Amino acid sequence: MAVGLSSLPPLLPVPGVRLATVCAGIKKPGRRDLVLIELVEGACCTAVFTRNAFCAAPVVVAKRHLAQGIPRYLLINTGNANAGTGERGLQDASSCCQSLAKIMDVMPEQVLPFSTGVIGEPLPVTPIFNAMPAACKALSETGWVEAAHGIMTTDTVAKGVSRQVEIAGQMITVTGIAKGAGMIRPDMATMLAFVATDAKVAAPLLQQFLQAAVQDSFNSITVDGDTSTNDACVLIATGCSPMEEITASDDAAFAALARTVREVCIALAQAIVRDGEGATKFITIEVEGGADNEECRQAAYAVAHSPLVKTAFFASDPNWGRILAAVGRAGIRDLDVARVAVFLDELCIVTKGGRAPDYQEEQGRAVMAREEITVRIDLGRGTHTARLWTCDFSYDYVRINAEYRT
Amino acid sequence: MAVGLSSLPPLLPVPGVRLATVCAGIKKPGRRDLVLIELVEGACCTAVFTRNAFCAAPVVVAKRHLAQGIPRYLLINTGNANAGTGERGLQDASSCCQSLAKIMDVMPEQVLPFSTGVIGEPLPVTPIFNAMPAACKALSETGWVEAAHGIMTTDTVAKGVSRQVEIAGQMITVTGIAKGAGMIRPDMATMLAFVATDAKVAAPLLQQFLQAAVQDSFNSITVDGDTSTNDACVLIATGCSPMEEITASDDAAFAALARTVREVCIALAQAIVRDGEGATKFITIEVEGGADNEECRQAAYAVAHSPLVKTAFFASDPNWGRILAAVGRAGIRDLDVARVAVFLDELCIVTKGGRAPDYQEEQGRAVMAREEITVRIDLGRGTHTARLWTCDFSYDYVRINAEYRT
Repeated sequence: MAVGLSSLPPLLPVPGVRLATVCAGIKKPGRRDLVLIELVEGACCTAVFTRNAFCAAPVVVAKRHLAQGIPRYLLINTGNANAGTGERGLQDASSCCQSLAKIMDVMPEQVLPFSTGVIGEPLPVTPIFNAMPAACKALSETGWVEAAHGIMTTDTVAKGVSRQVEIAGQMITVTGIAKGAGMIRPDMATMLAFVATDAKVAAPLLQQFLQAAVQDSFNSITVDGDTSTNDACVLIATGCSPMEEITASDDAAFAALARTVREVCIALAQAIVRDGEGATKFITIEVEGGADNEECRQAAYAVAHSPLVKTAFFASDPNWGRILAAVGRAGIRDLDVARVAVFLDELCIVTKGGRAPDYQEEQGRAVMAREEITVRIDLGRGTHTARLWTCDFSYDYVRINAEYRT
Repeated sequence: MAVGLSSLPPLLPVPGVRLATVCAGIKKPGRRDLVLIELVEGACCTAVFTRNAFCAAPVVVAKRHLAQGIPRYLLINTGNANAGTGERGLQDASSCCQSLAKIMDVMPEQVLPFSTGVIGEPLPVTPIFNAMPAACKALSETGWVEAAHGIMTTDTVAKGVSRQVEIAGQMITVTGIAKGAGMIRPDMATMLAFVATDAKVAAPLLQQFLQAAVQDSFNSITVDGDTSTNDACVLIATGCSPMEEITASDDAAFAALARTVREVCIALAQAIVRDGEGATKFITIEVEGGADNEECRQAAYAVAHSPLVKTAFFASDPNWGRILAAVGRAGIRDLDVARVAVFLDELCIVTKGGRAPDYQEEQGRAVMAREEITVRIDLGRGTHTARLWTCDFSYDYVRINAEYRT
């Protein structure tokens, strides 16, 4: 189903992180729907959240707890988003944290709650309470693969990736998992992603790594333009590696870890698009020649969100008119159409705002038949660029979202 | 197919306007694809056009001609949009005007060209030249119904409406036709609409009527969020009625004509949505309680464009979580979710940002099963309002746009 996404690669343990996945029966019996992640004492944890004004109760509580305590546990459920649930939703999220804190003998503020699934239904807290003891017992450093499955909703494949990098003589691991397939146009982070490393990094620097990585990864994808109420991306540094703490002044170590975190985030973000609801194509949109970064992103999103462009990709139709029409309505000030060029992979299809002189329709069809395509748009008015990833729009997107209750 | 759209109502002739529709064979033989509209000498004509930066060649030429001359002829073809066609497209549009001007013995600047259909293909001018003499001979005051058919592309029904209003003892007629079903999120006007009255109005006032009417009609609909390269809306006042000229100081006459033009434009705009590609539902979105007009429109468009909301309408699923999530990402500053209420027709489904206490899912399903539904969203932060019309998102939207070459 997912475009170019093979089965989950091996996920390397991150010393200092243990995970457990159980079937709590939140929505359906027998489904892995509750994931617990434990961080070693002294681990550093940072996060970014959705900017949707209708953010879910767990987002509100997780933000509050992050500000108050040093996280030791992340509690993630699928099957229910605990969003649009008002005061009761906040109480439910808090009581889950309290219940876990009691078992594990930590402060409730040291537990961050995350939920994904149906919006607007009260969170079934009893099955969650009941499943907690089993989850606590099952915690294991090798629990990443199970956890990647346990956070899925409409995802057709589990998503995870590991990278290793040598920093100052130490082999450092970065492992991450993510979920998401629809309601994907992250405004801050994707639906849920959890990335951990055993590197030693202090909180302010870790936040900096996360924000930079998120901008180029989860904030550069779109499936349907809908921003979730529950988006969250967490980055953990356990500090379990016997290394010196990475600081901003240590250029080489800083760059190496930043690059590796970014790679992991990009791989996870791309996996979400590859598994986009109903996706049959994986599309990279590169806009170059912009007067600034923002107008490049504007143009890229206008193309990526256009239902007409997306259905043309589904049909393998090299319909460059629809691409130009989307760029034209992107709201770029004083855009001179006569300077715009468009490429499908290596093939130039538009120059000077019109069909390229040598372009033949069969060539376009051949490129569009590929499963992975890069659309490159040159605005011809500057040196700035932007890149994002999206997928096509198929019958199955409609079927999935007509049948599934978000 | 079209939601609640019966066959074309009788279209009343407008003294001073004659129309002809012929089969020129632009894309397919035997299809009515060329419409000629003649305005009596002395008629006043005003227009609004797409603001898409990739506006089509006929839009460029029509704007130029409007600035240079007093229009006597509108020449409209379907089957080819003459968009993304560069310098040659401009020449083609001009030479069509010249050719007609020669036959009719007017200046080329007195002809306005309009095109709709496939983007990016050169306009086949020879069949248009060849069909012109027949079109000129066929001009008739009763040609409105034929013309409504002649401007269709993916439309499943022809769209037209007539209204009459008594102004200062004279019965005045306003008749309009329009086309459009996809690539509909007018930024200025819909794809093509032609409205005429026999009232006597000077150009500046006529432009005022048009702009006010367009804002509440064609600029308040969306099918798929894609703005066409060819949008245009023309308003003609032939002045053939034996009335005094309507001026801004004549409050009653001014208001009566403004209201009637607005009614005609709203009926045509709604007809476009009812015939939206793949539409099975006609949705009115009303946002109230906004701090200003703009934020009400922002919220309404966010809901109207959300693929998740649109597929929920297709599935008759009262998925208020998706509606709230769309409002939440609309970019309204400091939106207090706890004040938001949502109604489906008469049914209150959300209060204080969460499910309404008395709301039962079956009630929501019953309303959502209707073919025409009003979603009313109260932002709870002011007195401003906005209203727009849209349709749902079905398998057929994907089918139509995967099969049809815009």
